[in-house]
Amino acid sequence: MKILLVGATGRLGTALGATLAERGHDVLGASRSDAAYPVDITDPATIEVLYERAGGVDAVACAAGSTPYKPLDRLTRDDYLSGFLNKALGQIELVRQGLPAIAPRGSFTLITGILAREPIVTSAAASVANGAVEAFVRAAALEAAPVRVNAVSPTVITEALDKYADFFPGFEPVPLERVVQAYVRSIEGAETGRVFELG
Amino acid sequence: MKILLVGATGRLGTALGATLAERGHDVLGASRSDAAYPVDITDPATIEVLYERAGGVDAVACAAGSTPYKPLDRLTRDDYLSGFLNKALGQIELVRQGLPAIAPRGSFTLITGILAREPIVTSAAASVANGAVEAFVRAAALEAAPVRVNAVSPTVITEALDKYADFFPGFEPVPLERVVQAYVRSIEGAETGRVFELG
Repeated sequence: MKILLVGATGRLGTALGATLAERGHDVLGASRSDAAYPVDITDPATIEVLYERAGGVDAVACAAGSTPYKPLDRLTRDDYLSGFLNKALGQIELVRQGLPAIAPRGSFTLITGILAREPIVTSAAASVANGAVEAFVRAAALEAAPVRVNAVSPTVITEALDKYADFFPGFEPVPLERVVQAYVRSIEGAETGRVFELG
Repeated sequence: MKILLVGATGRLGTALGATLAERGHDVLGASRSDAAYPVDITDPATIEVLYERAGGVDAVACAAGSTPYKPLDRLTRDDYLSGFLNKALGQIELVRQGLPAIAPRGSFTLITGILAREPIVTSAAASVANGAVEAFVRAAALEAAPVRVNAVSPTVITEALDKYADFFPGFEPVPLERVVQAYVRSIEGAETGRVFELG
């Protein structure tokens, strides 16, 4: 398959891109800094250019999206808004603009996370963005068929524990490889409207 | 209790206000058109004025928030954004600005809906807003304690079937009175971080 991978240079995107290439797919890696496929998901004009350059694709996989983390009493209205504009609306826009570009049974696979269902201290803005993404996936899948829309929703990733362990006390981490395999299941399988919860 | 009711003039707000008053509460009814307590939840400055006028309160109940409904292939980026700014960020802002004004064990009760978990055709923007609200409630409750944060999440309301039945084929409706009682449970009970699902 020809797969557009957005967020190709991060920890997850790098591992996912390698696995997809090993599986024989043609991976177009997009990121804010990419020379051939530059994209900032908060800027819809760059998404439009991305799809023009990519041409038709069989799958879009997103491993991009960030949100602010702050204690509840320090989160501003702009923090909630910026988290939504980036991780939620950025990914929604990838689907919205990508629907005309995707193959008939193609798929969109978005990234969300455990904070939608199991919040932690400082996660309110992140939880909001993730909750929005997960609800979008369920709703969009209804109408996009036979195009498919799924999300991968991991808990803290084992390989990131050095940085995040203190925020997730007692949470069982998930190895990056299991997260990558959830994308593979979404892309190569037939399921739609699924939020693949890991952890 | 002294209860600030936002969206006091709609179908739900009117019924809720009547029940809360019957139960002996002092209800301050706010709405876009109210003379004493005017508020537009999409405008944070009006929320600031609302809390200044209301003074300290024991509970905030919101029955306000709207989103666009359109087929997936006609929803624009602005539709998703406007639904979020209204039903999600509008209610989040009621909590965010209300935290300093609420009694120590006071509560916020927000409105969401079944479309977060069970979408229908045309609901993608509504599902996104509802999913955001539900994730926010779970996250905010963690840090707001002992202040409580809940949401009420009904399916289509029996009394609104004349208008919405065609959008919810085969969905079991919920009588308005059950929705009102979920608010009562949230306000007078001790639970927090709950999304009271009805239907």
